[in-house]
Amino acid sequence: MIIVLKPGASEAQLKHVVERIEAAGCRAHVSCGEELTIVGCIGDEARVERLNWSTVPGVERAERITKPYKLASRQLQPKAGVIEVGGVKIGGGTLTVMAGPCTVEDRKMLFDAAAAVKKAGAGILRGGAFKPRTSPYDFQGLGEEGLRLLQEAGRKYGMPVVTEVRTLAHVPLACRYADILQVGARNMQNYDLLTEVGRAGRPVLLKRGLSATVKELLLAAEYVLAAGNRQVILCERGIRTFETATRFTFDVSAIPVLKAETHLPVIFDPSHAAGQWRLVAPLARAGVAAGADGLIVEVHCDPEEAKCDGDQALRPDVFADTVKDLKAIHAVVCKHARR
Amino acid sequence: MIIVLKPGASEAQLKHVVERIEAAGCRAHVSCGEELTIVGCIGDEARVERLNWSTVPGVERAERITKPYKLASRQLQPKAGVIEVGGVKIGGGTLTVMAGPCTVEDRKMLFDAAAAVKKAGAGILRGGAFKPRTSPYDFQGLGEEGLRLLQEAGRKYGMPVVTEVRTLAHVPLACRYADILQVGARNMQNYDLLTEVGRAGRPVLLKRGLSATVKELLLAAEYVLAAGNRQVILCERGIRTFETATRFTFDVSAIPVLKAETHLPVIFDPSHAAGQWRLVAPLARAGVAAGADGLIVEVHCDPEEAKCDGDQALRPDVFADTVKDLKAIHAVVCKHARR
Amino acid sequence: MIIVLKPGASEAQLKHVVERIEAAGCRAHVSCGEELTIVGCIGDEARVERLNWSTVPGVERAERITKPYKLASRQLQPKAGVIEVGGVKIGGGTLTVMAGPCTVEDRKMLFDAAAAVKKAGAGILRGGAFKPRTSPYDFQGLGEEGLRLLQEAGRKYGMPVVTEVRTLAHVPLACRYADILQVGARNMQNYDLLTEVGRAGRPVLLKRGLSATVKELLLAAEYVLAAGNRQVILCERGIRTFETATRFTFDVSAIPVLKAETHLPVIFDPSHAAGQWRLVAPLARAGVAAGADGLIVEVHCDPEEAKCDGDQALRPDVFADTVKDLKAIHAVVCKHARR
Amino acid sequence: MIIVLKPGASEAQLKHVVERIEAAGCRAHVSCGEELTIVGCIGDEARVERLNWSTVPGVERAERITKPYKLASRQLQPKAGVIEVGGVKIGGGTLTVMAGPCTVEDRKMLFDAAAAVKKAGAGILRGGAFKPRTSPYDFQGLGEEGLRLLQEAGRKYGMPVVTEVRTLAHVPLACRYADILQVGARNMQNYDLLTEVGRAGRPVLLKRGLSATVKELLLAAEYVLAAGNRQVILCERGIRTFETATRFTFDVSAIPVLKAETHLPVIFDPSHAAGQWRLVAPLARAGVAAGADGLIVEVHCDPEEAKCDGDQALRPDVFADTVKDLKAIHAVVCKHARR
Repeated sequence: MIIVLKPGASEAQLKHVVERIEAAGCRAHVSCGEELTIVGCIGDEARVERLNWSTVPGVERAERITKPYKLASRQLQPKAGVIEVGGVKIGGGTLTVMAGPCTVEDRKMLFDAAAAVKKAGAGILRGGAFKPRTSPYDFQGLGEEGLRLLQEAGRKYGMPVVTEVRTLAHVPLACRYADILQVGARNMQNYDLLTEVGRAGRPVLLKRGLSATVKELLLAAEYVLAAGNRQVILCERGIRTFETATRFTFDVSAIPVLKAETHLPVIFDPSHAAGQWRLVAPLARAGVAAGADGLIVEVHCDPEEAKCDGDQALRPDVFADTVKDLKAIHAVVCKHARR
Repeated sequence: MIIVLKPGASEAQLKHVVERIEAAGCRAHVSCGEELTIVGCIGDEARVERLNWSTVPGVERAERITKPYKLASRQLQPKAGVIEVGGVKIGGGTLTVMAGPCTVEDRKMLFDAAAAVKKAGAGILRGGAFKPRTSPYDFQGLGEEGLRLLQEAGRKYGMPVVTEVRTLAHVPLACRYADILQVGARNMQNYDLLTEVGRAGRPVLLKRGLSATVKELLLAAEYVLAAGNRQVILCERGIRTFETATRFTFDVSAIPVLKAETHLPVIFDPSHAAGQWRLVAPLARAGVAAGADGLIVEVHCDPEEAKCDGDQALRPDVFADTVKDLKAIHAVVCKHARR
Repeated sequence: MIIVLKPGASEAQLKHVVERIEAAGCRAHVSCGEELTIVGCIGDEARVERLNWSTVPGVERAERITKPYKLASRQLQPKAGVIEVGGVKIGGGTLTVMAGPCTVEDRKMLFDAAAAVKKAGAGILRGGAFKPRTSPYDFQGLGEEGLRLLQEAGRKYGMPVVTEVRTLAHVPLACRYADILQVGARNMQNYDLLTEVGRAGRPVLLKRGLSATVKELLLAAEYVLAAGNRQVILCERGIRTFETATRFTFDVSAIPVLKAETHLPVIFDPSHAAGQWRLVAPLARAGVAAGADGLIVEVHCDPEEAKCDGDQALRPDVFADTVKDLKAIHAVVCKHARR
Repeated sequence: MIIVLKPGASEAQLKHVVERIEAAGCRAHVSCGEELTIVGCIGDEARVERLNWSTVPGVERAERITKPYKLASRQLQPKAGVIEVGGVKIGGGTLTVMAGPCTVEDRKMLFDAAAAVKKAGAGILRGGAFKPRTSPYDFQGLGEEGLRLLQEAGRKYGMPVVTEVRTLAHVPLACRYADILQVGARNMQNYDLLTEVGRAGRPVLLKRGLSATVKELLLAAEYVLAAGNRQVILCERGIRTFETATRFTFDVSAIPVLKAETHLPVIFDPSHAAGQWRLVAPLARAGVAAGADGLIVEVHCDPEEAKCDGDQALRPDVFADTVKDLKAIHAVVCKHARR
């Protein structure tokens, strides 16, 4: 922690600052410059950070120096982690493709989509049973019946399955049927849900909130990790900006930034970032080229009739072509992968 | 709904568009311009909106014309609503001041703060028992013990109380002790929680998500309203932008925009928007001048020692001065209040 | 300047960092914490800031501590400045109202608007002769003829005039006719233009760029100040965010932030921030309540027929009512004005 | 243009709307829905767009349907354009690499950098002589001497050169020495400069403003095109968002969006987007994977000593490795290139 004093802060104010730092169990290191006096804290920064510095007379500002996340950080675990689910690896130099429909609508559409994505090279099947919808009047998913169908499709086509949990009660339910629990972007700071999936002992796919910084995403992961679950997969899915030509702005830079900061696997979701199927393939290629460990894509055999987000679903043929390109690009970039 | 066809769309494509509209139970109105053909839908727009238009051959884009929220809209209820809680009015030309500490830390600090804000003119007491914190290592609130203290303080000083619920299980608990349930910014799109407070039969204070549009805030309110609860108070509390001089950017324009769009009362939270106590008074004055029905402010008798958000808490004397200014400004602007 | 070393940085790397600081003519102050080593620089920070710290082995990050603007800062000149133009004061506790049409369209419309705003209490007349337009096909202003008319209207109604300069050649031209030169938002970082108006010896109204931080606005002002012109008026006019309900997001917090940081007068433009005339009055009240020294508003006697930005122009009667409210609010808040 | 009337708009108001449209030389097409009445305009939309619709009684909102840019649009010229400069092609399926130092500092550093980028496979040499700097106290470039050196280096190593012009007077000067004129992000809406480079008869590299939408970038290009210059290259270089982990947010989606909207070649600048050299290679790979026609990268033989933006400069060996990857990725994606 660095405490910058106001120009002209008094001796008494400096003394008070030092006393607060020492009362919190840290040591203070005073550095008097020509224009400004700076006080560095040595010790556990978190204890000093809570001290409401802007209310302390004579203080201009206070800034944390160490990272607020420990378990998620490369400092603690320098080597990239690998998560294995039903024989499929995520992280560690492989490219993992998760694909399937946005929502489980009925048996036939799900099984058609599952067959198609398996054939095209997907390793994990996605499908939503509990959908968070902006409007209360939209289709909200099939619930447990959807989970049951998803599990059956996964078994039939030999793919572990990932599905979203929206509230605490969904967690034990989803654990019965799914291999990976997804926490959606709108729940990235739903701390009770994070703690609950942290206790569930199942890998967690954590999506970045649409206005969350990289640091906040890592702090959300820290909630899951601190609850005892070390199997967290991070997912960039587009952030909210002023640009309206796309539904969200795909923050492709977050991929290499996260890979440098954390040992957790990093994937991305080009479908939600784009919001339009025509952009999904270029964004998918971009994310893999930037060094992601995998991606999650929406695929539907008849997007025109999809009950949810059909606008961004790829048809199976476009998806199959895209996967081929992604493998070729991954072969170029995987030598740079930070392990 | 307006469907804009691509330049050069074929007759067959136009026919397919018209058929889709009619199959959804609406009528199509085709308008051939010099450069573009546009198809208008007449009927229930929501049914046509779900049709994944960007996947339909020949379609350039599709746009909704009517508002997606009905119950929250002025169209349904043109007159501004008034919510009454324990004798205190919110909306309808009065200025409602909610104040108190960020978090209930202990009995003494809460009662001191309650006494101070009551004396300064606050009508409603705030205090958190369940705090959503960005880091898992920060103080998370006293839980039910906090609620009990809050209720006691409210009774002693004659103020109804408002407190935040973070997850479903908090709702029945909070209903036992609190008069108004608050849904925080990070939960604005926690749809299960919205539905739950919608069923609780208690007024709801709904904070705008930090990257939510005005339209999304109204759709979140629609979830509560659609669950049968008509007592929703909207709260602007700062949005996330590129500017880092303040913690968030207080979107003061949202106040008149919301007042025009909805009959629900609109308040604001200058404390969280600013993140620094020195800015709270100017922002409080700005929000009242812009036409808000009230505000919610953090007050602490010893901000330096606060366990949560002390940086943005007002001391009682500054708060008392501010309330005087707010009343004077409200007297100037209340004649413009949209009823 | 604070240089934070990477955990595990070597002695040799630390030595290299210290040598770079000393070679730049500063002193280094090394502080070894439990987790991190921090090096503070004592001396002229600007010389150390240029050293490309992220390329230096062992360095995690480097951060400037002092403000990069000197002349604009309150540190240099703690007392709020007052600019006087043709008998009208800007800053120092008065409320200055600048008003008039967006663009000078013709003699009659300009004189009608000038008469109306004078009568309602405006002190300075605005009007554009060189308009920056997003599309090359839009009306770009009358040029010198517009300036001539503006000067004539200002003289007739006893108001100094302000007009925008868009490029270097406009500066000497505008100096012949106008009392204040405006640099528009899109030119806030047109450094050649800033230097040119800095040499012109005429007060400058500098609008904040639509994605400029407060710090960048002050650095832009520093260009004008460094060129020898101390008469700079800063103007908040809305920033670009994700919200589309308003044309821009009026950053009302920037007003108290700027008032604390700089001695320069701070005004605002509610017309461009809002983009819709219905929002102009509430935003005008908010900005004055937040402590601005004045505002600049677009007024047109027949907005429906305006050639530019008619959507955001106030009719004279609405403007007159608004000015009355602003004066009443200013009377409440001026006691807080930071002098 | 679509004019949406307010619910309950009167017959007289509808009539007035229709008259305004007809007075502007267009035809009105009235469509009465169950909830709303919509009026479509048939004819030259630009003439109707200027009519200040929000001031017209009974109008809820008005929306443009056709694109406001004509010359830049694919509608006018469906085939992707190719620009040829000194034997180097930009667009049309090739991958063009522009590289060199941020700023021309002196002869030796420039020639060393030019030799290195040529050897690594760059086709065009970049170098700044007139630098736009946020602070007036930073190094602003060598001016004409820098241009002279740049030209000499380009000739020696057989590369056309690109350099930035910051103000009108730089245009004829730069035309004497450079093959491509660059308009920087901060000048993207400097309309006088756009018109001037439009008249200069030299290819123009137009960078996206840091808060400009894709539509605004195309309108800025339209200024150059409308002045008679058809050789415009668009460049994505990162936009301003709330994320602070990178200097800007590289909007990789803008590449496929622009490729679909316009026939102009689209390149990108990973150096400015990232702001840190470690991120440049991943972003470069992402941009090429997304379908860009080329990129412009900063390379410096001794970044630690660079006078400007050394933090984001690649060393020659990293650059050479990166170019190899880019070529391999381009070979994968060029089959998708929209011609």
